[in-house]
Amino acid sequence: MSKGITSRSEDYSKWYNDIVQKADLAENSGVRGMMVIKPYGYAIWEKIQAQLDKMFKETGHQNAYFPLLIPKSYFSKEASHVEGFAKECAVVTHYRLKNSPDGKGVIVDPDAKLEEELIIRPTSETIIWSTYKNWIQSYRDLPLLINQWANVMRWEMRTRLFLRTAEFLWQEGHTAHATQAEAWTETTKMLDVYAEFAETWMAMPVIKGAKSASERFAGALETLCIEALMQDGKALQAGTSHFLGQNFAKAFDVKFTDQSGKLDYVWATSWGVSTRLMGALVMAHSDDNGLVLPPKLAPIQVVIVPIYQKIEQLEIIRTEVNKITEQLKIKGISFKFDDRDSQRPGFKFAEYELKGVPVRLALGPRDIEQGTIEVVRRDTLEKSVVQQVGIVEYIEKLLEDIQQNIYQKALNFRNENIRKANSYDEFKTILNEKGGFILAHWDGTPETEEQIKSETKATIRSLPFEYEKEEGICIVTGKPSERRVLFAKSY
Amino acid sequence: MSKGITSRSEDYSKWYNDIVQKADLAENSGVRGMMVIKPYGYAIWEKIQAQLDKMFKETGHQNAYFPLLIPKSYFSKEASHVEGFAKECAVVTHYRLKNSPDGKGVIVDPDAKLEEELIIRPTSETIIWSTYKNWIQSYRDLPLLINQWANVMRWEMRTRLFLRTAEFLWQEGHTAHATQAEAWTETTKMLDVYAEFAETWMAMPVIKGAKSASERFAGALETLCIEALMQDGKALQAGTSHFLGQNFAKAFDVKFTDQSGKLDYVWATSWGVSTRLMGALVMAHSDDNGLVLPPKLAPIQVVIVPIYQKIEQLEIIRTEVNKITEQLKIKGISFKFDDRDSQRPGFKFAEYELKGVPVRLALGPRDIEQGTIEVVRRDTLEKSVVQQVGIVEYIEKLLEDIQQNIYQKALNFRNENIRKANSYDEFKTILNEKGGFILAHWDGTPETEEQIKSETKATIRSLPFEYEKEEGICIVTGKPSERRVLFAKSY
Repeated sequence: MSKGITSRSEDYSKWYNDIVQKADLAENSGVRGMMVIKPYGYAIWEKIQAQLDKMFKETGHQNAYFPLLIPKSYFSKEASHVEGFAKECAVVTHYRLKNSPDGKGVIVDPDAKLEEELIIRPTSETIIWSTYKNWIQSYRDLPLLINQWANVMRWEMRTRLFLRTAEFLWQEGHTAHATQAEAWTETTKMLDVYAEFAETWMAMPVIKGAKSASERFAGALETLCIEALMQDGKALQAGTSHFLGQNFAKAFDVKFTDQSGKLDYVWATSWGVSTRLMGALVMAHSDDNGLVLPPKLAPIQVVIVPIYQKIEQLEIIRTEVNKITEQLKIKGISFKFDDRDSQRPGFKFAEYELKGVPVRLALGPRDIEQGTIEVVRRDTLEKSVVQQVGIVEYIEKLLEDIQQNIYQKALNFRNENIRKANSYDEFKTILNEKGGFILAHWDGTPETEEQIKSETKATIRSLPFEYEKEEGICIVTGKPSERRVLFAKSY
Repeated sequence: MSKGITSRSEDYSKWYNDIVQKADLAENSGVRGMMVIKPYGYAIWEKIQAQLDKMFKETGHQNAYFPLLIPKSYFSKEASHVEGFAKECAVVTHYRLKNSPDGKGVIVDPDAKLEEELIIRPTSETIIWSTYKNWIQSYRDLPLLINQWANVMRWEMRTRLFLRTAEFLWQEGHTAHATQAEAWTETTKMLDVYAEFAETWMAMPVIKGAKSASERFAGALETLCIEALMQDGKALQAGTSHFLGQNFAKAFDVKFTDQSGKLDYVWATSWGVSTRLMGALVMAHSDDNGLVLPPKLAPIQVVIVPIYQKIEQLEIIRTEVNKITEQLKIKGISFKFDDRDSQRPGFKFAEYELKGVPVRLALGPRDIEQGTIEVVRRDTLEKSVVQQVGIVEYIEKLLEDIQQNIYQKALNFRNENIRKANSYDEFKTILNEKGGFILAHWDGTPETEEQIKSETKATIRSLPFEYEKEEGICIVTGKPSERRVLFAKSY
């Protein structure tokens, strides 16, 4: 097959779109800004969901489901929250259609206007905290550790498949606690869960940190985040965990009686990751030949392509293949035996390369004679001929190697692309010539942050946890600074 | 704990609401007609989802995701489809809020009016077939076997938790085929999957059949369904599978080239079950003490309550319990050891009875001395004292017994409540005095069907597959009839 993928060096943005569409992950729908997640893309999302859901449950969370539509008045209850989301709300105003008087199609029935408009949830803090009010009376009802898998809608003007879409799928955790300390522990714990997932499962190194005040979630006292570096040197925010303080408890009047009988507002967190992770996954590892998937999230981990001339040969190959796949099944390794007669092996090779299947096996009559099998790993495209004896153990080890290798590759790239800038000129030079993350001193004011953003398009990605504090002076204003912060251009 | 459940004989409808709310399955939200599915209820739904999803995949289907919002014009493309759904559509007309000029809260920004209104999907045939148009060109692209897990919205005027809500969760399968025969096979295959799920997993016997023309899905040539009988003698439609013919292919111009090179419209099916199944599950088995869950769908299959006076005793009990739970884990039996010190055993017993946990164990110092354990099964509330040796095998067998027993009980009830009526008078008498299913002759016309409905509130639930054809005369008009059909009042 002809892949027709634009190379990264030619046009990175087009390369990304080509991969997403040609590897059958997603496509634009007929509805502005909304995507169709195709079966192969959705199968990857299901793997992401399954692992995250397991990690949430292991940390004591339960799933629940809250309404899609939120009364407009709920939004107004937390001032900065409505400020943050008002401009991108899809609004339901009517609840009925009727036949058009001119007989052409249907129109919205003006008699079916809602008294109060309903908003399609852009996030669910307001509807959930209005519910928690009835669930929480005493410290015995706390902590409340709930997660929701849902679709949300934010009316984005410029959309890109997975990275920024009007509708996206996500999970949103919403927890309630008796003390500030406990809520803060939850906020950092869930950030750690996200970081572990990104690194261990997506093979994508991330930097943990806190957002600057201007980049915080609308209604949060503190927003923690994980930031990953894409191959074009731009950062991508891959997950956020918010410490909400008592803001939503106050907005929705959620109080509890503590052990001493005192009444107080409840402490809150919320945290989420979305189908945006799919975009990060594509950009973190893929190459000009197509998608590269970490084995732990690949819907098909091993593909087996028979090489034959005559149909009798295929049957002999099939017998050998069955011996291998029986063992793969036992080990829980997913596979596909592509015995389609309509396509040639070369076409199939290209197709699975494009789709990022980690390991490809090819087996022909000569291999069977010689007791060998051809193995190609997707990450390096290295080809080996190995003995059929012990092949399943070989594959098992290879899948681990690939997972580790793509993580290490991404980590090396990330580490090579964190640079310190000690002056604004140096900052701009690095940004223009190399991109990547830049550690620089900042005076802590939103004005300077805004100036840097408008002059260079770089934003503060986070006040990273893992880099040492260091006294210095702001690269723009020369005012004193206590620490370097992490800048980058971003998605 | 005081359960405060209304008895079925006193007020069946109130009994249902009591169970749903007091067993923490769901509650009404602040948004009209929309429910909150609480963690315990959602855990049951997750079990339902997991099993159905497995069955869909085993029958060759893949999951995907399509947009929540559908342009109004898409609906008009299939005439009977829009006719069927127009009256219950939630309509998005604007995409932005702004601060109110009077400074009080936010208002819908009149400048952000959509050119074409968008409908929150009540079902996804139109958006999916508009997508399939680009996916299908040749017979090689067929069959296309896709399922979607999603939320949908139908603006119902009278709502009831799980049974009829404005928003509900469901799955919708949408398949495309090269031939009429293949599409028909798919339609019946998925009905069989639903029936197997209902009977084997929900322990709820169902009758398979075809809807009468007036009860068909809007846009379908044939709607197959499974019908279950609730304890109050009313029927509940638990799942539907639609043969759509070429209607949607024609509406969205989806053609394919067959093996002979001829161009033809694609054949379609769609099929779905929803959170309505939760309502069916509650009503099928529960009693005046609370929920009764089939072990296969119970989030907690076994609860263990320690009986102790002093805290030292609890630690001895805990050691014994750990031996049991280790073995339960190995067998994949889910359990909870309720060692809360804040509640007495009697309170805990009542709570797990209410929540329908199939097996309850109680263990005290005397049991430990004697090597025994108290076992109570939820379905019959029978109490036994059994030996600790072999307890896990005992529990495993007991869970199977309970699953089988509640199925058999529901089946007996259902079979006792299928009656033949040979005259309209007899029909009315049975309906008023006994309820249940009635097999009666009908002349096949929508007029007679409508007359029976308006006079008795009974509807034709289906033309059931499993009852023999038999010549007769319509109970209302005396006209000839080829078969009895299944009537009942219904949810």
